[in-house]
Amino acid sequence: MQEHTLERSKDKVLFTPGPLTTSRSVKQAMLRDLGSRDGEFIAIVREIRRRLLEAGGVRDCGYEAIPMQGSGTFALESVLSSVMPPKAKLLVAINGAYGRRIAQIAQVLRVDASALTFPETEPVDPQAVAIALEGDRTITHVAVVHCETTTGILNPVPETGAVVNQAGRIYFVDAMSSFGAVPLNLAGCSIDYLVSSSNKCIEGVPGFAFVLARREALLATEGFARSLSLDLLAQWKGLERDGQFRFTPPTHALLAFHQALLELEQEGGVEARAARYRANYRTLVDGMRAMGFHEYLAPARQGYIITSFLYPDDPNFRFSEFYDRLNEKGYVIYPGKVSDANCFRIGHIGRIFPGDIQDLLAAIQSVLAAMGVDLSRPRETCGISV
Amino acid sequence: MQEHTLERSKDKVLFTPGPLTTSRSVKQAMLRDLGSRDGEFIAIVREIRRRLLEAGGVRDCGYEAIPMQGSGTFALESVLSSVMPPKAKLLVAINGAYGRRIAQIAQVLRVDASALTFPETEPVDPQAVAIALEGDRTITHVAVVHCETTTGILNPVPETGAVVNQAGRIYFVDAMSSFGAVPLNLAGCSIDYLVSSSNKCIEGVPGFAFVLARREALLATEGFARSLSLDLLAQWKGLERDGQFRFTPPTHALLAFHQALLELEQEGGVEARAARYRANYRTLVDGMRAMGFHEYLAPARQGYIITSFLYPDDPNFRFSEFYDRLNEKGYVIYPGKVSDANCFRIGHIGRIFPGDIQDLLAAIQSVLAAMGVDLSRPRETCGISV
Repeated sequence: MQEHTLERSKDKVLFTPGPLTTSRSVKQAMLRDLGSRDGEFIAIVREIRRRLLEAGGVRDCGYEAIPMQGSGTFALESVLSSVMPPKAKLLVAINGAYGRRIAQIAQVLRVDASALTFPETEPVDPQAVAIALEGDRTITHVAVVHCETTTGILNPVPETGAVVNQAGRIYFVDAMSSFGAVPLNLAGCSIDYLVSSSNKCIEGVPGFAFVLARREALLATEGFARSLSLDLLAQWKGLERDGQFRFTPPTHALLAFHQALLELEQEGGVEARAARYRANYRTLVDGMRAMGFHEYLAPARQGYIITSFLYPDDPNFRFSEFYDRLNEKGYVIYPGKVSDANCFRIGHIGRIFPGDIQDLLAAIQSVLAAMGVDLSRPRETCGISV
Repeated sequence: MQEHTLERSKDKVLFTPGPLTTSRSVKQAMLRDLGSRDGEFIAIVREIRRRLLEAGGVRDCGYEAIPMQGSGTFALESVLSSVMPPKAKLLVAINGAYGRRIAQIAQVLRVDASALTFPETEPVDPQAVAIALEGDRTITHVAVVHCETTTGILNPVPETGAVVNQAGRIYFVDAMSSFGAVPLNLAGCSIDYLVSSSNKCIEGVPGFAFVLARREALLATEGFARSLSLDLLAQWKGLERDGQFRFTPPTHALLAFHQALLELEQEGGVEARAARYRANYRTLVDGMRAMGFHEYLAPARQGYIITSFLYPDDPNFRFSEFYDRLNEKGYVIYPGKVSDANCFRIGHIGRIFPGDIQDLLAAIQSVLAAMGVDLSRPRETCGISV
């Protein structure tokens, strides 16, 4: 295997749900070795935590930002394993694989849970959540995925929050692929715990995730942790005590994330990032439709994070060949994940711009031609598409 | 807070137990964004796993290398939470903070465990382990720390392995700060599970850890996992199935680690790295003794990973001032961790050479002079030192 050098050709552009394409300067921030007890590093961690609260609209509002080593799933499990009392019960609203994953974590942890399942084409219905909470008084916690990356659907986090808050339950939001790009005020949505990851819309590199927690809720969880590594309250206490992680932090990924947060600010914050991602999405969907592709979701359901497209009807279309040919041209797309239709996905987040999307569209056009795929003829739509 | 730029002055040299000083080229390997499903990335992960088995002397010997997201403690917990059947019992040999941490993980996981405790100045005694196993037939697993970073002591992993093997128990070694620098053949030592981390003697950056597992032992653990994220068997199965991590891997830290493994080979492998670290240790101890410092451990007990030094008797010596002054000069040392004596620690691992140690020694000399500390007078030794 060849040694990696700076001279190698340009990296492929990642149109995926993450890890994403990040800026050169974000990666360059990793060209340092800082000690984990170093004053400069501690100040960087403090600054990251402050900026995360700002991105959630809850600086000085009774919330705490807690980075956690590992991937996003580790932080989800950190919340579930740390904040649920022994006799608590979780309601998971499910309309895709990431809702199912929360239920799976609860199952492995032997946390009592029930699922409220919706079709993958439909958003979570807050009224149905209200009825479920009304019908089962033993439910103490409710979990919802903000952007279900399975399809790209956006769930109504504020409206569900109002229902959960009204019913006096604890509200947990998986905002993995939306935080930093879909404006959300945690207090306004009555969110008690929100989880996202370093390598999503903040545009850092993978290596840790983070939890935004309502302080009062967090402080009431003493003694509930089912894990030492993933103990959320202990992680927070450690950071508050001396600014240090309890266990070795991914110092380089944190340096990159700090730089990514500076670049988020330079771009104009969450609203400006949302505008760029919306422009990416618009450019993609317009171009794909013009070629004859159809989205899996109805446009009104569709978020601007990632889009699922139905396979074309043409028998010449084979996804693996389509994927490989795009990959060879330097464009990485993503397989589908929905249960009931053949789809592929294209993400429009990360350090990519409408110009990159146009390059991708040109590559898709050329790959289709090479594969002899004709999208011009009318098709039998099997999903909800335009 | 200032933006980080490549123009900033040279980083401090880290004489710590990790994160460590790494080579420029290891960090430069992170200047890429690879997709986690990318063929090149998958090949790199495969290569990392192969080289880890080689470093443990067990390529094609029935062992598996399993990287796990998070810090070393996450991987320790991954083993304890994944491989212990519900009615198993762990014996932890303890002579420092990292042995205590294994016991603490077991306690949080509600895994039955008993501790076999030794003074921090003494290595684990294999004969005492044999007697403990003889005396408690319910013990199924035995855990030992190889290099107890608390003091720097090296525990007799091979001799303890013979005892554990003889008694037919499962053997778990925390080789966090020794793997890659203290030659160890896993099969020869009868090790079933060994844990180490990306940012120790392989000289990568922090972001993940890894487990080397005897395949047959691992395969017998189906259904034992107490965590989804930290499920060791599921992590291995995922990597075997398609070469991919189940959950987002720290792609950049893995690229750096791959480069670090290439540089380990270029240096001449584990034996050559051991020789450099031994030379670092020798240079340090000779220089410190010449100045009048005393080690905490008897030299025969002392490994060449990290050394604990007793505070000098001089009332002008205040550790925080000593630390800060060295820090300002660009040398990062580490506080002590032993229970019964005032110590500080100096690590001699990472991308540092005897010349760096000499620079550190000169800085220490100059800091002592500035603090008015006189080490020349005879002292009452309170620890076991020369």
